[in-house]
Amino acid sequence: AALAACPAGAVDPLPSWNDTPAKQRILSFVAKVTNEGSADFVPPEARIATFDNDGTLWCEQPMYVQLAFALARVKTLAPQHPEWRNTQPFQAVLEDDMKALVADGKHGLAELIAATHAGMTSDQFEEIAGDWIAAAKHPRFKQLYTQCVYQPQLELLDYLRASGFKTFIVSGGGIEFMRPWTQRVYGIAPPQVVGSSIVTEFQIKDGKPVLMRLPKVNFIDDKAGKPVGIGQHIGQRPILAFGNSAGDLEMLQYTTGGGGARLGLLVYHNDAQREYAYGPAGGLPDSKIGTFPQSLMDQAEKSGWVVVGMKDDWGRIFPFDPQ
Amino acid sequence: AALAACPAGAVDPLPSWNDTPAKQRILSFVAKVTNEGSADFVPPEARIATFDNDGTLWCEQPMYVQLAFALARVKTLAPQHPEWRNTQPFQAVLEDDMKALVADGKHGLAELIAATHAGMTSDQFEEIAGDWIAAAKHPRFKQLYTQCVYQPQLELLDYLRASGFKTFIVSGGGIEFMRPWTQRVYGIAPPQVVGSSIVTEFQIKDGKPVLMRLPKVNFIDDKAGKPVGIGQHIGQRPILAFGNSAGDLEMLQYTTGGGGARLGLLVYHNDAQREYAYGPAGGLPDSKIGTFPQSLMDQAEKSGWVVVGMKDDWGRIFPFDPQ
Ligand SMILES: [Ca+2]
Ligand SMILES: [Ca+2]
Repeated sequence: AALAACPAGAVDPLPSWNDTPAKQRILSFVAKVTNEGSADFVPPEARIATFDNDGTLWCEQPMYVQLAFALARVKTLAPQHPEWRNTQPFQAVLEDDMKALVADGKHGLAELIAATHAGMTSDQFEEIAGDWIAAAKHPRFKQLYTQCVYQPQLELLDYLRASGFKTFIVSGGGIEFMRPWTQRVYGIAPPQVVGSSIVTEFQIKDGKPVLMRLPKVNFIDDKAGKPVGIGQHIGQRPILAFGNSAGDLEMLQYTTGGGGARLGLLVYHNDAQREYAYGPAGGLPDSKIGTFPQSLMDQAEKSGWVVVGMKDDWGRIFPFDPQ
Repeated sequence: AALAACPAGAVDPLPSWNDTPAKQRILSFVAKVTNEGSADFVPPEARIATFDNDGTLWCEQPMYVQLAFALARVKTLAPQHPEWRNTQPFQAVLEDDMKALVADGKHGLAELIAATHAGMTSDQFEEIAGDWIAAAKHPRFKQLYTQCVYQPQLELLDYLRASGFKTFIVSGGGIEFMRPWTQRVYGIAPPQVVGSSIVTEFQIKDGKPVLMRLPKVNFIDDKAGKPVGIGQHIGQRPILAFGNSAGDLEMLQYTTGGGGARLGLLVYHNDAQREYAYGPAGGLPDSKIGTFPQSLMDQAEKSGWVVVGMKDDWGRIFPFDPQ
């Protein structure tokens, strides 16, 4: 079946994927759902593929990029907020005291989001986020965050679209944090980005009609929220879903629980040398970011989901890695 | 400019539109935003067009099609609910007593929606709505409701897509009521449909992962909700928006309030002979369905929005009308 997708003389659509069973599973799945003669044929309008973002399309360690954005934003805004010097969680951010920040927990995070993601119009936020992401670099790789995306996944996105799929992001991250750059980086247009959001309100401000961002959570697109977000935004059950953590369990269940051919995939970060290694599945170090528990590994085996181990399945990780 | 869009020998992209200023405004707008040499050029990824549905793309009189669906559904389900025979609003529906139904007001409508739109999975609802719409006919035109769509608008949707636009529905109607048929009827895929919704919940039911529809409102995509729905689902400000009632005011404000070339349009139903005539703008009869108040007409004039009068601007209304 893989050969059918890749006839002699044809260019390998996934050159950064090693020739392992993971790649074969992808190639044979795409071959059968696009082959009109196949019992598993799926018409183009039903070829929906959903991808988690953090840890699935781009690097999420040592912290979520959006958290790095929020921290940087606090520092930028600090001169206008002298009270932040002795108010948590801002003091912790300004003093680079990650322990105090973590101790402040979810409440602190909500305050950070309110202070950095709300109180401006959607257009203003798009500009702020877009400007930051255009310059901000990963602390280890010293490359733009938007360069710290996985080359094999860029190839997979292209390959799926060339095979008639519509590709969507379904992320726990903020929908408006991603939209300014997903077209340029992943070829995924803003309407095809699903994510968490805060409440927006239509207002006429200084005579201009705007959407004002309010400091109130609207929707959390994680865990059981992912199928709900898919239902809201896409309105079709995907036939392929790719995630990397416990937050993707329900999306993979929902996707592979439909009739006909389905494919569930998970990135497993087991490559400390080229990227990061974390689980705790398979005995890797535990991580609060992108947790991949053993229970998810067991579920993947039971459900026939493809666990893509970075170390063995990907020949190249980042676009800036040597070919 | 219209000539530029329609060079000698080219086929008229809008044959069901009469040669009036409304048609000229559309042709010249599309010509300038698609002309790379024009100061008003808009790159394809920003060519977003949003259309209201009821009264803009299809006939909404003598009642919203979705209400006709809900009423029919009550009758279908009545044998399982003997108590409905003496409980409002169901009794009114079963006795075809529209006066009593209207007297029951918004509370009655909410009960009808809960009884007919919730308590099943999204997949089941899609099938129920899809089956009904495949057979239900308009009481006056004796054609399928999906035939009672406006031929000029079908041509406009095709013309915009051929000109690089993405076309979206942004309707006060139920998002899942529309999605089963919008691709077939309008060429608009489910992800490009924005509408009102009820809350859905991810559940494993009889071992199958499903989205269960709960009897609780999630989002009302009307009035100031329309720009909010656009922000959520599209994440880009449209450059063209087409509505027909007071519920579209904010969508048109939001659309035409952006920078660069923008076009706002409103269908004005002033053709009792071929369709319906209602306002109350311009002295036409008032209507609770699709109200077009004089204040909207005044706003349209002030803002330069195009009021498309059915009677004069459309040569043909429905696909089943003689050419
Ligand atoms: Ca993730
Ligand atoms: Ca309408």
